[in-house]
Amino acid sequence: MPKLLLGKPVIDAIATELSPRVAALAERGAVPTLAIVRVGERPDDMSYERTALKRAESLGIAVRRVTLPADASQTQLMNAIAQVNDDESIHGCLMFRPLPSHLDEQAACDALDSRKDVDGAGLGSLARVFSGRGNGFAPCTAAACLEVLDHYGIEVAGKRAAVVGRSLVIGRPVAMLLMERHATVTLCHSRTDDVAAAMRDADIVVLATGRARAYGAKCFRPGQTVLDVGINFDAAGVMCGDADFDAACDALGDEGAITPVPRGIGGVTTSVLMKHVVEAAEGVVE
Amino acid sequence: MPKLLLGKPVIDAIATELSPRVAALAERGAVPTLAIVRVGERPDDMSYERTALKRAESLGIAVRRVTLPADASQTQLMNAIAQVNDDESIHGCLMFRPLPSHLDEQAACDALDSRKDVDGAGLGSLARVFSGRGNGFAPCTAAACLEVLDHYGIEVAGKRAAVVGRSLVIGRPVAMLLMERHATVTLCHSRTDDVAAAMRDADIVVLATGRARAYGAKCFRPGQTVLDVGINFDAAGVMCGDADFDAACDALGDEGAITPVPRGIGGVTTSVLMKHVVEAAEGVVE
Repeated sequence: MPKLLLGKPVIDAIATELSPRVAALAERGAVPTLAIVRVGERPDDMSYERTALKRAESLGIAVRRVTLPADASQTQLMNAIAQVNDDESIHGCLMFRPLPSHLDEQAACDALDSRKDVDGAGLGSLARVFSGRGNGFAPCTAAACLEVLDHYGIEVAGKRAAVVGRSLVIGRPVAMLLMERHATVTLCHSRTDDVAAAMRDADIVVLATGRARAYGAKCFRPGQTVLDVGINFDAAGVMCGDADFDAACDALGDEGAITPVPRGIGGVTTSVLMKHVVEAAEGVVE
Repeated sequence: MPKLLLGKPVIDAIATELSPRVAALAERGAVPTLAIVRVGERPDDMSYERTALKRAESLGIAVRRVTLPADASQTQLMNAIAQVNDDESIHGCLMFRPLPSHLDEQAACDALDSRKDVDGAGLGSLARVFSGRGNGFAPCTAAACLEVLDHYGIEVAGKRAAVVGRSLVIGRPVAMLLMERHATVTLCHSRTDDVAAAMRDADIVVLATGRARAYGAKCFRPGQTVLDVGINFDAAGVMCGDADFDAACDALGDEGAITPVPRGIGGVTTSVLMKHVVEAAEGVVE
């Protein structure tokens, strides 16, 4: 059985790390503050909002909810973002996506001040992830992968990593974060000829395709570290990752390591969001 | 002996493609115009400027030289860029780099309007290369690699590519361009554990490290395509690429293909610059 890379200890460690930083900000009269922009009332968004509120409260981070009706106009949305940009008491902003289809999501993401773009949604943040230059943050789930590796002391430099999935919220940014830390990264996707072989070749595998239990025994070998970012529901409504967990555990053996779904990367993402808010506040509070 | 992927036929094909496009712009009263910003008189810059002037003239593209003294201030430089941005008759701008060390090169690159950033130097262009969104252009040398592959009918989709070198002018952007075209890309660098193995695994290899003749027989296998972006000079002052050309040719065999140095990618870069200027002009001329 491989080592289970549970999210909870990582979440606790981030809380421990943030506590004195939040206190130091408080001494300077600042409460790190996150704005959450939500359009409509999608159950996924509402559920994540509740989680974020609870996590923020436990860390001494304030949350300002900015809610718009499901039929909000682009102008209303852009005005809400402009207000977030102008409000010096707001340090970071998370906007739930996808937005209703009548709205221009990219324009909204790109309008947010990069210094407040704590979930790495806009062009400025993407440029920073790619180049290391400018302002902005990596998307939280991508950054959460590195938090997990670091917490469990898994070496990245000089290792081979396979990232499966090339989305802008996980695949591409996590590939860049791993590369920045000196991993040799192979970015796989739906057009990859033999993804199982590419995965087996790697020391670290990041799965981010959203395909329930799609990666089985032939994709893994003993001793690998697997970060499963997928949050899927199977036909029976059971939450599962992109990996066929049981088959992966068999293949990884005692020397391997894997994040389960649930109880793996997912919850760490929220903590990374809070960490980014604290970083953003530290960047502007004098 | 592998097929030699010479630059000249690619340069000629780009000229043939651009000719009617430049004529169509002329019919609308517009001459595609490139500004070249040069600080000081570095021999490399002067030499490239002459090449660019000749190539531009042959294609009906105008060049505006903006020259500053080697001791120019940051303010002078930023003013020059602001003038380029404001001048509607200028469609693209190339600024020679590296700038003298007293100048903030990144600030200068990022100040250039992305729509005129025809060599992909600023954050906007880098964000576009990474995300496919926004305005800007890929760095010309990275784009030249794709021009060569396309010209010689070398399939990219579904192939494995190894990019060696992770600079922002070639390695990282060419990795993204190859991925966008559905290659499975491995990005190698100085911290890669076994770069020879990673190179042998690939169908397409891009060498962009600036290490003269550093990649020899053990890095190649029969049938590969090798794009050698390196422009180096050996101890005897002879221009050479990153590949040990003779050893590579032996290893690649009759089914392989390689760009020589000189007469390979280098000259194509200048043609891609001109193509970007024409694209930029087409984007704004009504």
